[in-house]
Amino acid sequence: MDAIILAAGKGERLRPLTENRPKPLIPIAGKPILDHILERVESLVDNIYIIVKYKKEKIIERYKDREKIEFLEQGEIDGTGEALLTAKDYVDKEFLVINGDIIFEDNLEEFLKFKYAIGVKEVEDPKNYGVLVVKNDKIIDLEEKPENPRSNLINAGIYKLDSKIFDILENIGLSERGEKEITDALKILIKEKDVKAVKLKGFWSDIGLPWHVLEANKYFLDKIKRDIRGEIEENVVIKGDVIIEEGAKVRANSVIEGPAIIKSGSVVGPLAYIRPYTVLMENTFVGNSSEVKGSIIMKNTKIPHLSYVGDSIIGENCNFGCNTITANLRFDDRPVKVNIKGKRVESVRKLGVIMGDNVKTGIQVSFMPGVKVGSNSWIGASCLIDKDIERDTFVYKRDSLIFKKRVGE
Amino acid sequence: MDAIILAAGKGERLRPLTENRPKPLIPIAGKPILDHILERVESLVDNIYIIVKYKKEKIIERYKDREKIEFLEQGEIDGTGEALLTAKDYVDKEFLVINGDIIFEDNLEEFLKFKYAIGVKEVEDPKNYGVLVVKNDKIIDLEEKPENPRSNLINAGIYKLDSKIFDILENIGLSERGEKEITDALKILIKEKDVKAVKLKGFWSDIGLPWHVLEANKYFLDKIKRDIRGEIEENVVIKGDVIIEEGAKVRANSVIEGPAIIKSGSVVGPLAYIRPYTVLMENTFVGNSSEVKGSIIMKNTKIPHLSYVGDSIIGENCNFGCNTITANLRFDDRPVKVNIKGKRVESVRKLGVIMGDNVKTGIQVSFMPGVKVGSNSWIGASCLIDKDIERDTFVYKRDSLIFKKRVGE
Amino acid sequence: MDAIILAAGKGERLRPLTENRPKPLIPIAGKPILDHILERVESLVDNIYIIVKYKKEKIIERYKDREKIEFLEQGEIDGTGEALLTAKDYVDKEFLVINGDIIFEDNLEEFLKFKYAIGVKEVEDPKNYGVLVVKNDKIIDLEEKPENPRSNLINAGIYKLDSKIFDILENIGLSERGEKEITDALKILIKEKDVKAVKLKGFWSDIGLPWHVLEANKYFLDKIKRDIRGEIEENVVIKGDVIIEEGAKVRANSVIEGPAIIKSGSVVGPLAYIRPYTVLMENTFVGNSSEVKGSIIMKNTKIPHLSYVGDSIIGENCNFGCNTITANLRFDDRPVKVNIKGKRVESVRKLGVIMGDNVKTGIQVSFMPGVKVGSNSWIGASCLIDKDIERDTFVYKRDSLIFKKRVGE
Repeated sequence: MDAIILAAGKGERLRPLTENRPKPLIPIAGKPILDHILERVESLVDNIYIIVKYKKEKIIERYKDREKIEFLEQGEIDGTGEALLTAKDYVDKEFLVINGDIIFEDNLEEFLKFKYAIGVKEVEDPKNYGVLVVKNDKIIDLEEKPENPRSNLINAGIYKLDSKIFDILENIGLSERGEKEITDALKILIKEKDVKAVKLKGFWSDIGLPWHVLEANKYFLDKIKRDIRGEIEENVVIKGDVIIEEGAKVRANSVIEGPAIIKSGSVVGPLAYIRPYTVLMENTFVGNSSEVKGSIIMKNTKIPHLSYVGDSIIGENCNFGCNTITANLRFDDRPVKVNIKGKRVESVRKLGVIMGDNVKTGIQVSFMPGVKVGSNSWIGASCLIDKDIERDTFVYKRDSLIFKKRVGE
Repeated sequence: MDAIILAAGKGERLRPLTENRPKPLIPIAGKPILDHILERVESLVDNIYIIVKYKKEKIIERYKDREKIEFLEQGEIDGTGEALLTAKDYVDKEFLVINGDIIFEDNLEEFLKFKYAIGVKEVEDPKNYGVLVVKNDKIIDLEEKPENPRSNLINAGIYKLDSKIFDILENIGLSERGEKEITDALKILIKEKDVKAVKLKGFWSDIGLPWHVLEANKYFLDKIKRDIRGEIEENVVIKGDVIIEEGAKVRANSVIEGPAIIKSGSVVGPLAYIRPYTVLMENTFVGNSSEVKGSIIMKNTKIPHLSYVGDSIIGENCNFGCNTITANLRFDDRPVKVNIKGKRVESVRKLGVIMGDNVKTGIQVSFMPGVKVGSNSWIGASCLIDKDIERDTFVYKRDSLIFKKRVGE
Repeated sequence: MDAIILAAGKGERLRPLTENRPKPLIPIAGKPILDHILERVESLVDNIYIIVKYKKEKIIERYKDREKIEFLEQGEIDGTGEALLTAKDYVDKEFLVINGDIIFEDNLEEFLKFKYAIGVKEVEDPKNYGVLVVKNDKIIDLEEKPENPRSNLINAGIYKLDSKIFDILENIGLSERGEKEITDALKILIKEKDVKAVKLKGFWSDIGLPWHVLEANKYFLDKIKRDIRGEIEENVVIKGDVIIEEGAKVRANSVIEGPAIIKSGSVVGPLAYIRPYTVLMENTFVGNSSEVKGSIIMKNTKIPHLSYVGDSIIGENCNFGCNTITANLRFDDRPVKVNIKGKRVESVRKLGVIMGDNVKTGIQVSFMPGVKVGSNSWIGASCLIDKDIERDTFVYKRDSLIFKKRVGE
């Protein structure tokens, strides 16, 4: 049995997080989405074909030494169907197919029992997904983003298929958006074959929007167990389930509250405060009087002093000037709004900043809730950022100051 | 013997502290002014009639289950005399009368010895008070706010009277400001009867201006004794006389310097700093790297991170954005000026902000010394507030930012 | 043998540090430059003549009770030659001469062996110094700031001379800038006499520019040994070589990293963070959540809360409002530029603010890297200072705020 993982997409709704990495490499609970998937798949299959295209070198770099894994590059045509077709000449007759940008908790053994199966997940609001109509565990219909969903079961992006799917894919055309879609092929398959619905019981998310990253992060952090291997200096107080990897250091008089992960090479403190649901990726630094809460800080990012980062996702290699502060809550307590592909979308009650890589902030910078900052941007000292900043932008301000000579005062 | 406590007034000079509560409910050293008065009176009398009108429900709510206490509502006419008259049909023939908005330290037993007595207090600058002329302990004259005071003894707002005062009150008219004044009646009483002056020896204040609240708070905090019943986490350092009530929690690595009171349900820290003369009322929160000094923080108010509140009074249910900072000192070291009923009044050398209830501040907000902020107002991120904010106001700013594309930099 | 120390100059390139003190009194590693020089000289000579002029009373005040030391005041004519000539009628026939504004590490015994000697220092870029041409240890030429230096040995400002130099000085005229220069006399001396070059092996700096103060400070701090005599409160963590003088106090839960010096009367913390290469002079205060790194804080200066001072020199009697933050690094990582006598000069990669005495900053003030602030200036709350501030200036800003009534929100 082989597996095919579809990891070629651009992940546009997750910009700026996907500006420099494919979505499957966004870290959740301390490791890329793709790591989570591989953990579920590796023991079940003989070969794993990862279909790559957008920022493929980053995926190859991370997994190239891993047994069982091979990379196949998708051609010019986009779409999940075309991605799958890329593996046609490589895989066994039967195989698992998994979207590379979903995160889930279920064991996949159940899928292996069936010749054809689609993972389904029960959700409250299925309108933005592929909705499946199921009768006695058999899938009888599939509609993409229907206005009036006929069930609350959605396509979870996990499939057990065989080579018949390639025949179908080769014979269908492109969708309206010019892509070859896996769902178009599945629609045909379910007419012709007995395709089982395998209901996922555990956590599942397609990480469709930036704050889904934080939600999944929170979910998986709740599962970790305390494991402290790094160096802990004097008067450090660590509460709850905290993983501090070897090579990480928590400096004097800091306070850490789990669940949280502090990865190798990172330095926390002195006098810093890490709150629940925080992940500090490799070689990050959170220094004096800084506080990080419910956030993912990607590798090599520095938050040296007097800063607060809450409910945020911060890319790699960022550097925060002293007293960089994120707001994460509206005065009116309504959901924070975020721009997603040109539309204002309501997110969650608490959301901070979504930041790309290599961003530098000056001292005393403020970010309003839900703002996105593109990679490589510089935010000048004392700026209040209340709208999205495109990548490669230098933003600054000039205060109008009044000068008076102090004579005889 | 009965007591009448006059608690019906509006306390306008103490706005915004009196926007949502009558002045007798302003907390000093951890409890309302009225609690302080009741402690002095309860054991001396059989019944206590509290005269209420403005925000009467708040007084009734707090004291309704208290033995000896009854509430009487003042009618349409305003004034302390009218307030007193409200109790006419209820009290014993002889009774104590106490202004409900003063705070004092003396035991009142001395008053019970005399049929008629008025408490007097020696002050440095009597011009803004009722000034009494006393001869051999007998009061021979009374002038309201005289330009050229004939003594430095003022009417302290504590009286031993009998029902004769009701006869006088019923026969006098209204004052220029349309109120029935107790002092107009007293002027007649001292002509007809032997009214003793009982000199108060201890602390006394009529809490006429907002900073008097802080002065009285300081005075009574100097009397408290260390009593720590709350939960104290690791590496907390507590110096001096600090009361931490049961149900309060001081989190790791915080520092508390007394005299200070931290009331039940409050959380301090981790890594917070409470300095002398601070009272944190019930269910407050002062978090990471925040510092509170010489201030009263009323119940349910949150100061979560990186903020400084000094020499300030903060109402209930306020929420401070990260890095909200109060200034409390002028560059020229002169007394901070405060608007009191339309006039700029010199207060004291160090005074922060006087804030009503339900105020929310954004991140990085600055308050200049002596500023007043009305209830329910929202102060937007990064605003510098250098003048009073009326209640129900949303204040914000828009920075003019300059955007430049970073090409080839 | 006597010594003459030239300490009369204005030190203009070090403004504002020299606004209220002569350059030899700038503190390096906890004591004035002149202290460092005297330590090298006192045991070698019988009398020390310090030539003073600019702010002479400050030098006299500090050293007036010191054995061996006498003060001679330079007359109207400026220049190092004229300064030297001031000592003509006082010194022995042979004597050491030392510029009072250099700092060096070498023992000077070597100089005593020779009748005439000039200290030389090998530098990488000699263009801005007096360059010496040396042959077999004999100085054969001297050029002031040559465009094409003929060696990389420069005049280190340390001389062994005899009274012949006075004869020469009396016979030479004034330089283009109207001063009598010692180098003009030396040029004649080396033609007539065998003047040895004594090569300095240790650290040497003429502290020509503000950041040289910090470089020298760093060098000498690397030599100190841990010596903790002050009061250390609970949970204080002190790492490395830190000198805490008697009479200094480190308050609870602070963290100190050496090398650093905290002088008598100073208070650090609680919850403060002192980083390497910091000197806190007498009676300074660095309070809650404040951080000082690689900086010299002169006496009586207060940094009470939530501030960051990095790679900066702060004068005496300054007071920092809460949340005063210095930036010390450019986004583009290029050397910070500083105005020196009207020119933009590249300094070093990390440089904060250079501040005179008696400066007050309001809350939330930001300083850009390399900014200079003149003495007695006041910087209003929330100002972003991105250019030099002249002395005696009051700088402030008025935010344009938008006010909206919150009705029915």
